[in-house]
Amino acid sequence: MLNNSSATSAESRTGAPFYRAVGDEIEVFRAAARRGLPVLLKGPTGCGKTRFVEAMAEQSGRELITVAGHEDMTSADLVGRFLLKGSETVWVDGPLTRAVREGAIFYLDEVVEARQDTTVVIHPLADHRRALPVDRLGTTVPAAPGFQLVISYNPGYQSVLKNLKESTRQRFVAIELGFPPAQAEIDIVSHETGVDPQTAQALVALGNAIRNLDGSPLREGASTRMLILAGGLVAEGLGLRSAVQAAIVQILSDDTDVIRALGELADAVLPPM
Amino acid sequence: MLNNSSATSAESRTGAPFYRAVGDEIEVFRAAARRGLPVLLKGPTGCGKTRFVEAMAEQSGRELITVAGHEDMTSADLVGRFLLKGSETVWVDGPLTRAVREGAIFYLDEVVEARQDTTVVIHPLADHRRALPVDRLGTTVPAAPGFQLVISYNPGYQSVLKNLKESTRQRFVAIELGFPPAQAEIDIVSHETGVDPQTAQALVALGNAIRNLDGSPLREGASTRMLILAGGLVAEGLGLRSAVQAAIVQILSDDTDVIRALGELADAVLPPM
Amino acid sequence: MLNNSSATSAESRTGAPFYRAVGDEIEVFRAAARRGLPVLLKGPTGCGKTRFVEAMAEQSGRELITVAGHEDMTSADLVGRFLLKGSETVWVDGPLTRAVREGAIFYLDEVVEARQDTTVVIHPLADHRRALPVDRLGTTVPAAPGFQLVISYNPGYQSVLKNLKESTRQRFVAIELGFPPAQAEIDIVSHETGVDPQTAQALVALGNAIRNLDGSPLREGASTRMLILAGGLVAEGLGLRSAVQAAIVQILSDDTDVIRALGELADAVLPPM
Amino acid sequence: MLNNSSATSAESRTGAPFYRAVGDEIEVFRAAARRGLPVLLKGPTGCGKTRFVEAMAEQSGRELITVAGHEDMTSADLVGRFLLKGSETVWVDGPLTRAVREGAIFYLDEVVEARQDTTVVIHPLADHRRALPVDRLGTTVPAAPGFQLVISYNPGYQSVLKNLKESTRQRFVAIELGFPPAQAEIDIVSHETGVDPQTAQALVALGNAIRNLDGSPLREGASTRMLILAGGLVAEGLGLRSAVQAAIVQILSDDTDVIRALGELADAVLPPM
Amino acid sequence: MLNNSSATSAESRTGAPFYRAVGDEIEVFRAAARRGLPVLLKGPTGCGKTRFVEAMAEQSGRELITVAGHEDMTSADLVGRFLLKGSETVWVDGPLTRAVREGAIFYLDEVVEARQDTTVVIHPLADHRRALPVDRLGTTVPAAPGFQLVISYNPGYQSVLKNLKESTRQRFVAIELGFPPAQAEIDIVSHETGVDPQTAQALVALGNAIRNLDGSPLREGASTRMLILAGGLVAEGLGLRSAVQAAIVQILSDDTDVIRALGELADAVLPPM
Amino acid sequence: MLNNSSATSAESRTGAPFYRAVGDEIEVFRAAARRGLPVLLKGPTGCGKTRFVEAMAEQSGRELITVAGHEDMTSADLVGRFLLKGSETVWVDGPLTRAVREGAIFYLDEVVEARQDTTVVIHPLADHRRALPVDRLGTTVPAAPGFQLVISYNPGYQSVLKNLKESTRQRFVAIELGFPPAQAEIDIVSHETGVDPQTAQALVALGNAIRNLDGSPLREGASTRMLILAGGLVAEGLGLRSAVQAAIVQILSDDTDVIRALGELADAVLPPM
Repeated sequence: MLNNSSATSAESRTGAPFYRAVGDEIEVFRAAARRGLPVLLKGPTGCGKTRFVEAMAEQSGRELITVAGHEDMTSADLVGRFLLKGSETVWVDGPLTRAVREGAIFYLDEVVEARQDTTVVIHPLADHRRALPVDRLGTTVPAAPGFQLVISYNPGYQSVLKNLKESTRQRFVAIELGFPPAQAEIDIVSHETGVDPQTAQALVALGNAIRNLDGSPLREGASTRMLILAGGLVAEGLGLRSAVQAAIVQILSDDTDVIRALGELADAVLPPM
Repeated sequence: MLNNSSATSAESRTGAPFYRAVGDEIEVFRAAARRGLPVLLKGPTGCGKTRFVEAMAEQSGRELITVAGHEDMTSADLVGRFLLKGSETVWVDGPLTRAVREGAIFYLDEVVEARQDTTVVIHPLADHRRALPVDRLGTTVPAAPGFQLVISYNPGYQSVLKNLKESTRQRFVAIELGFPPAQAEIDIVSHETGVDPQTAQALVALGNAIRNLDGSPLREGASTRMLILAGGLVAEGLGLRSAVQAAIVQILSDDTDVIRALGELADAVLPPM
Repeated sequence: MLNNSSATSAESRTGAPFYRAVGDEIEVFRAAARRGLPVLLKGPTGCGKTRFVEAMAEQSGRELITVAGHEDMTSADLVGRFLLKGSETVWVDGPLTRAVREGAIFYLDEVVEARQDTTVVIHPLADHRRALPVDRLGTTVPAAPGFQLVISYNPGYQSVLKNLKESTRQRFVAIELGFPPAQAEIDIVSHETGVDPQTAQALVALGNAIRNLDGSPLREGASTRMLILAGGLVAEGLGLRSAVQAAIVQILSDDTDVIRALGELADAVLPPM
Repeated sequence: MLNNSSATSAESRTGAPFYRAVGDEIEVFRAAARRGLPVLLKGPTGCGKTRFVEAMAEQSGRELITVAGHEDMTSADLVGRFLLKGSETVWVDGPLTRAVREGAIFYLDEVVEARQDTTVVIHPLADHRRALPVDRLGTTVPAAPGFQLVISYNPGYQSVLKNLKESTRQRFVAIELGFPPAQAEIDIVSHETGVDPQTAQALVALGNAIRNLDGSPLREGASTRMLILAGGLVAEGLGLRSAVQAAIVQILSDDTDVIRALGELADAVLPPM
Repeated sequence: MLNNSSATSAESRTGAPFYRAVGDEIEVFRAAARRGLPVLLKGPTGCGKTRFVEAMAEQSGRELITVAGHEDMTSADLVGRFLLKGSETVWVDGPLTRAVREGAIFYLDEVVEARQDTTVVIHPLADHRRALPVDRLGTTVPAAPGFQLVISYNPGYQSVLKNLKESTRQRFVAIELGFPPAQAEIDIVSHETGVDPQTAQALVALGNAIRNLDGSPLREGASTRMLILAGGLVAEGLGLRSAVQAAIVQILSDDTDVIRALGELADAVLPPM
Repeated sequence: MLNNSSATSAESRTGAPFYRAVGDEIEVFRAAARRGLPVLLKGPTGCGKTRFVEAMAEQSGRELITVAGHEDMTSADLVGRFLLKGSETVWVDGPLTRAVREGAIFYLDEVVEARQDTTVVIHPLADHRRALPVDRLGTTVPAAPGFQLVISYNPGYQSVLKNLKESTRQRFVAIELGFPPAQAEIDIVSHETGVDPQTAQALVALGNAIRNLDGSPLREGASTRMLILAGGLVAEGLGLRSAVQAAIVQILSDDTDVIRALGELADAVLPPM
């Protein structure tokens, strides 16, 4: 049975995107938006890239259309295709075409996962042409005012096989995001989960302890998103250690030794039970 | 010719899922359910992950829809597709879309086997958006109250090629399951097969002896499921050693030396014939 | 021009499957059948796995539906598909769906050759659910009484790439078959080919001599099937050595040195010309 | 402009297949045919495998249907498929189905080049079942009397990746063919090309000199087919050395040094100009 | 909110392509155009290859049709295909066919990314035939006067796998482009962005400093395009160092050490804040 | 703007194929044509293989149908396919089927680039059968008198992966072509481009100097085709050195050092400016 109050808090969480600036990312984004330049967001998983774009869209009053790249994604998934409806074929705009027509922000998350034809399709939108050729319709759709292309990727994941082509990359203005400073992160965890400041502080302290581990065997450090998930479980009445185990420790590793070491680190950092 | 009584017992076995808690897995699951958070079940083959989800669905009165991941599975297999019926095309919801609309638990077993576009399709359902974009229909289906996403995987099987992406993994709350303690496992084997407690005890003792082998060449230890299959053969009148050979030893290995060693272990652990 | 008498003997050969038990394989199969458990047959090429399943089907009065796995086999090949007939699409059950509806034995030979989605499709039939989800129809077909799943594979052929997944394997009860003892094999060769007992004995003696070669460069030993083919050629009037050359030696190897060595072994074992 | 007389001789060449037996291949083939057993022909390129099958078909008065395996060949290419004719779909038998219905010899040349589903499709035709399941039609076509399956492969080409599966291979009776003895080959070259016996003798002498080269860098020796092509050019008025260069030397190698060495060998073996 | 004045300047930028010749590239291009010879442009990312083709098209009054090669591009994407419109199939010319019919310049950017069938399709257009066979229509379209084929590639990116086939390459006349000399590049940056000459000079000085780094770990140097993007951000009011960071430093590398080193280089080269 | 006179000279160039024989290639080709034997042309890129076939077609009054092999080419591209026209499917002959019906020369350029099913499809046309089975139509098309199959490949490019199968190769008569002797090549360059004899001589001298470089790092030498392109640029008024740079030096290499060395060689060989 679902708890009504948490359902309500979930709604309030999606209402107004909460974003705390760390450097000059907002100024760079706004300058790029004024000039119609595309933006490349760089940063680790769960540091708030999506939240940043949501906040920028909210502030400029533009619609945000988000698509996550994956290795089976083709250009037709972005641009659109003909579908059979009854006995007729009807063209259905893809999310990119919709964003171009409506002047929305189009956010292509994890762009390097997509197949190369999807990155090529965004080239004419990412330079002075600002237009989307729709081969299947034989037309070119000019970008409405306000259209802006944003892509993200995680530099820690790049490999020889999956990398952004230089010719794509050089069309963008880059903004690097990292995890927020401690106090900002405590505010975020409190705001997003409703836990008391002590719990938020304890979770952020643990997060930073994990991020600062020397010679860490972890692929990634504890992300802000993971701290928020742990806080959410606490807010639902689960004990802090159980929540940390479920949302942080067991997520960070499958290795028995690493899991035990992270548990000991949690014991040292978290307040005694 | 099939024995009617066993057919009947098969039906009774499927009626009420039998689950014995080992740690705090039920509390974590319920806290996640209240908050609408997705759950990642980790654990070896045959330890009871599916049974656990069945029990959680039963207890919360929600429908359970289960799909097993495989390498040819695409997002359309989850979301739905247009089918020709007569001379018209009709949209048919996939199992995920059905679960989203009906507020069911959607259990994606062995998620890492599926192609990446299937893991990307669950992202918007696994964060605060709680909605499923159905590109082919041009709509987004909001998750009904009660909808919950559960995925499972076996950490012992992960490889560089088949692994859960960090950006997927960090959206989940993890619960690790292992094999149950001896007495709990004896209860399970008795309950599921109808063998007498001595036989159940002997099978569990053999299972634990195999799991504790030093420097074992086995890919996996004897699972609870295998003990239940062996018990089932005994319940049908087969000798204990033949049942152990068929349901455990020959399943665990194809190597002649390993098979002989497991047979000797069985001789040492099982009661004399 | 074909010889009528051999055509007749071919028919008699297919009438009643001839099977000689070696161990407890019949008891294990029957216990599994009573409980509705799926069976995994392990053994080398040509040792009689298919013949064993045919005999079990015959004895229990159930239909046998056999399908050979191959790397292009997909789940649709087993479950069924829509076909265009005239201007309408008509659903056509695949062989597995037919077996499930009719309570037949479904024998999937060389299961590891098939693509993984075919092994996933048999999972719900291989555990307590005993039902086949037919996604394309949006229905689940419960297994009729008597339905039983049997799969086979050859342990000598397994590789890292083509192996049975543990989660599939652990749903089965395993029966290992090998080549029959000498007298049983002589009976089989005589019965299947109509050659005199001396010829059958000579062929079986050669077969065992080849199987017992030290440090053999052969991928497989001489199978019962090969002995039967050689006997068949003798029954059609070919000389014993020519028959052995055609059905055994040239089949076992393409290497000139190995072929000569096998010829010398045949000279030593077979009666003088 | 084409010379009419040679067009005529081409027709006479296809009229009655000319085959000279070397060992007991004809007796083995006939015994296999009487019993309905499938035959595997082994031997190097151009040694006369196809010609042998043509002769066997001719002698037994059965039709011969030949298909060459290639890596894009699927089972549908052999069994048949539905084709759109006007607004209806019509089933069209593939060459294998036609051979099965009509009792023809079906010759699958270079079987290892085909995809595995094509080799699996021939299994039920290669054992006591002698029937072809046609999944798309939901029927099984019994082999008409006289149907016989013949496959060929070149042992010198086998690799780990492209090899006949043991379970396929062991269903066949094997016949190994090599290049014919000198006098037989001289007769063949004369008969097929119309050159005088001296020219035929010179070409066969050169062929055998090339086959007997020590430590040869050639992938294959000079085949009977190549000698026939060279003879054909001579019959059209080209000089013997030019014909040998075009049909043998330049075909056997692209390496300048090897080409020169083969030219010197030709100078030594062929009669002086 | 978008700034109107910059939207206007964007339009003026696209009106008349600005190109400054460096060597004899314009003479070579014109001689090739007079003779109808195809041209291969070689040069690094962002050096102005596209701009050069735009200027050549403008000067000769011919239409320019540009397509970017990608690894999923097939010949149908260039030549055209049948599309369903209502209940009829209609042929739709691809961009290459359109260019051939209309006598336009067809510019295939990053040709080595495309699949080989796309490069083969351009062969008959790239030699004396000057015609495009359209297999699907069963016709050959002769090139209208003025049609010219231009392809580009970046020699720094070639690999064994992705290279232009010799038989393609040898049909072209090659023009190599590099980055422009300092004063020309300053003019370009000023003209394209509207920044003052001091800022343009500083950006070009930084660009050349980066291009001249010894033992550079960068895949590519700073391109003219990157300098223009940085200038554009300055023109929108962003500080010079923030603009350089966003459009140059963070684009050139993801490595923390390299990013710091580039920042120090920028401090040394740019005027003090 | 295009120069009319050069457009006219382009037409005259395509009117009558100009071919200068080097060895006995014409005699061999004609003997093969009289006998209906298929021909394999071997030689480096741009040496005149296509021109040779054009000349042979012209001299014998047969139509020439040319297709370039590529890795996505399938047998349907050669044989034909059903296409939807309005609401009916219509068979459209592929270029090979057309050549077979009409008795044309069918020239498959760069055969090793095509997929293997395309090479298998030509087998029955390359031996005594001289017929093309069209599976989709269920018919076999006999070759009309005059049909001749010609394939080409470049021995310098062969690899383990892309090679002509022996069973294909041995069906052909081979003709090896190289670059023509100096005087012949001078005549060709003059005739094709209209430059004066001194320029043609200089270009051929440079071509031979490049072909004779010791330990050359070039994949291929300067081809006749490249000399003709350079001559063409000179004929359009470009300086000799600029033309050599564009059509030869920049085509032969992307390496700065090699380009400089070739430039110095050009300075030494070409007449002083």
